[in-house]
Amino acid sequence: MATLGLIEYKEASPEVRAVYDDIMATRKTDWINNFWKALANDPVTLKRTWQDIKQIMAPGALDPLTKELVYVAVSVSNQCGYCIASHTASARKKGMTDDMFRELMAVVGMANETNSLSAGYQIEVDQQFKV
Amino acid sequence: MATLGLIEYKEASPEVRAVYDDIMATRKTDWINNFWKALANDPVTLKRTWQDIKQIMAPGALDPLTKELVYVAVSVSNQCGYCIASHTASARKKGMTDDMFRELMAVVGMANETNSLSAGYQIEVDQQFKV
Amino acid sequence: MATLGLIEYKEASPEVRAVYDDIMATRKTDWINNFWKALANDPVTLKRTWQDIKQIMAPGALDPLTKELVYVAVSVSNQCGYCIASHTASARKKGMTDDMFRELMAVVGMANETNSLSAGYQIEVDQQFKV
Amino acid sequence: MATLGLIEYKEASPEVRAVYDDIMATRKTDWINNFWKALANDPVTLKRTWQDIKQIMAPGALDPLTKELVYVAVSVSNQCGYCIASHTASARKKGMTDDMFRELMAVVGMANETNSLSAGYQIEVDQQFKV
Amino acid sequence: MATLGLIEYKEASPEVRAVYDDIMATRKTDWINNFWKALANDPVTLKRTWQDIKQIMAPGALDPLTKELVYVAVSVSNQCGYCIASHTASARKKGMTDDMFRELMAVVGMANETNSLSAGYQIEVDQQFKV
Amino acid sequence: MATLGLIEYKEASPEVRAVYDDIMATRKTDWINNFWKALANDPVTLKRTWQDIKQIMAPGALDPLTKELVYVAVSVSNQCGYCIASHTASARKKGMTDDMFRELMAVVGMANETNSLSAGYQIEVDQQFKV
Repeated sequence: MATLGLIEYKEASPEVRAVYDDIMATRKTDWINNFWKALANDPVTLKRTWQDIKQIMAPGALDPLTKELVYVAVSVSNQCGYCIASHTASARKKGMTDDMFRELMAVVGMANETNSLSAGYQIEVDQQFKV
Repeated sequence: MATLGLIEYKEASPEVRAVYDDIMATRKTDWINNFWKALANDPVTLKRTWQDIKQIMAPGALDPLTKELVYVAVSVSNQCGYCIASHTASARKKGMTDDMFRELMAVVGMANETNSLSAGYQIEVDQQFKV
Repeated sequence: MATLGLIEYKEASPEVRAVYDDIMATRKTDWINNFWKALANDPVTLKRTWQDIKQIMAPGALDPLTKELVYVAVSVSNQCGYCIASHTASARKKGMTDDMFRELMAVVGMANETNSLSAGYQIEVDQQFKV
Repeated sequence: MATLGLIEYKEASPEVRAVYDDIMATRKTDWINNFWKALANDPVTLKRTWQDIKQIMAPGALDPLTKELVYVAVSVSNQCGYCIASHTASARKKGMTDDMFRELMAVVGMANETNSLSAGYQIEVDQQFKV
Repeated sequence: MATLGLIEYKEASPEVRAVYDDIMATRKTDWINNFWKALANDPVTLKRTWQDIKQIMAPGALDPLTKELVYVAVSVSNQCGYCIASHTASARKKGMTDDMFRELMAVVGMANETNSLSAGYQIEVDQQFKV
Repeated sequence: MATLGLIEYKEASPEVRAVYDDIMATRKTDWINNFWKALANDPVTLKRTWQDIKQIMAPGALDPLTKELVYVAVSVSNQCGYCIASHTASARKKGMTDDMFRELMAVVGMANETNSLSAGYQIEVDQQFKV
């Protein structure tokens, strides 16, 4: 980490600690990963981002594992090293098997390939897809 | 479409028609979308891409709907208009409900947000994620 | 075009016209494409960009067609609709055949696929590539 | 490497070894780079990707060096560290000189610049490019 | 718009109308742009996104115009057509002059160029930047 | 750095030294960062890029700090590690406070989120934005 450093639990304000506590309780872990420790430099963004993620990644019409797979897919397409590492770990924890990971990567790779083919061939959207 | 035009079934070579037939049979539809009609200008790529997609998107450790959701997520992150339109339609056909779409978009949006936050705060990967 | 409108030759300042004239002379055409007409709203950027492109795309260790193919490849990966259309046309003019286009697209698609696979599998750079 | 580890030749299955052997024979090298060792965790994807790349990167309407330059250009635009390192090395091996590399970078940089200018100025595609 | 359609004020639920009213009051306009009408299909995301944007784009250490310029810059780099159009309009409303727009585009173009050059030359971060 | 190595002042040609001297004089520093030392392998690109940046980043309708914030925003969206590190440092030097950085990141994160939402919901540009 550079710019603003990481805020450890011990040095955190009560406001930040409350978020850390909720993260650990929600995730059933006893540690906080660097993403949150960095965001803690901006307590407003820390709290908002955590609340948003907590709500968005909760079970709904899509189950938590599916959501995490989507998160990994986006992070991979964006070449975000930190996000790939952290969300691949999260996906594992939520039940992603080796086979799921392999298939996920194959789909992501194929999607990136055909995304560029579609652009390069300058393909117009079919009427059938506009309904 | 620009560059090379779209190859319609009637004017297609037997080689291309065989791929078209397999696409329609596999998808249980009676039409071919523009992506394939454009790729048909390159029969080798057409065949290879179709075979790859057919294999990759088939049921496996991940079900076809989950794979299609991932495909949409990647296409959205890449801002690929054609792919978003076509794969959102595919996802619908495979069972994506309105609620699933809403949640998918929320996850994709959040992932893109935190991907940039992770980069901007120059966050190092935690040791715990490297194991 | 939106924001600032397109500057047509007739209404252009002598400074802008000089760039337009050089573009047409260099390219052996009698019209100016929208990119330059839009940039003409910022004569300094117009002149700088044209001079840079003129120099960079000139024959050198790489021939002009190869450079144009690279330009198309980047534009496709970036999903830049305007650039794909204009540089595909430029590449055609410089000698890109249908077969070259097909192969170019196949390479671009494959590169985008393996770029995401490399990221997703979190692959470390080999020592051999660091020498 | 993280997630699934690298599969070394010694521990590889016959199926994976066959791909490794073909890679080394085709490339006339005696080692396998990490990309393939990581993909080997998914033998089906390994085989498919290698066969695709082998076919796509072979001499055709475009020569192998031109294809490799395009590969580097895409990887650079995608900020894919591993791919930049590995394909720059490949390009060197296929004959890319220092001068070619310098010009390649200049073209890639310029393309990325004008891609964003085209988007920012909201430039419409010229009729001439739609024919 | 495709997928879910646009929710007009008349047909909106009280919950959605409350957000629409706040958007118009905050922006001192009498209409709602399509982004919000589309998001209104997901009232939870609509409300959250609006509240986040309202808070984030408010005057702070950075003034609202600077924030809007940054928003345009990101949208341009991402090739997001809708966002470029809407945030360029917002920036204008907040005081962006033609000259500011021209300089903004020049900076964005240059940043995209040097971003790719940095990647392509595989440049390591200087120790001085790590402090 | 890999590929071509870094050109230190002592070993630089008079042509390159002239650029280095101008960089240090303009920035009021006594060292050159790796970006320029890498570009120095291509003196023409080095000179052109420096002159362009010097002109573009100079005070104008936008002040130098605003321009640097935009540069950081683009670099973050592109996931360019080197550029994020170097331009965050530049922004600091030009007066970016911790609060400004926090707000900048929040805006960049939000922009990336809504960019993907706009694409995913396939939102058409409002007539009002086309005027």
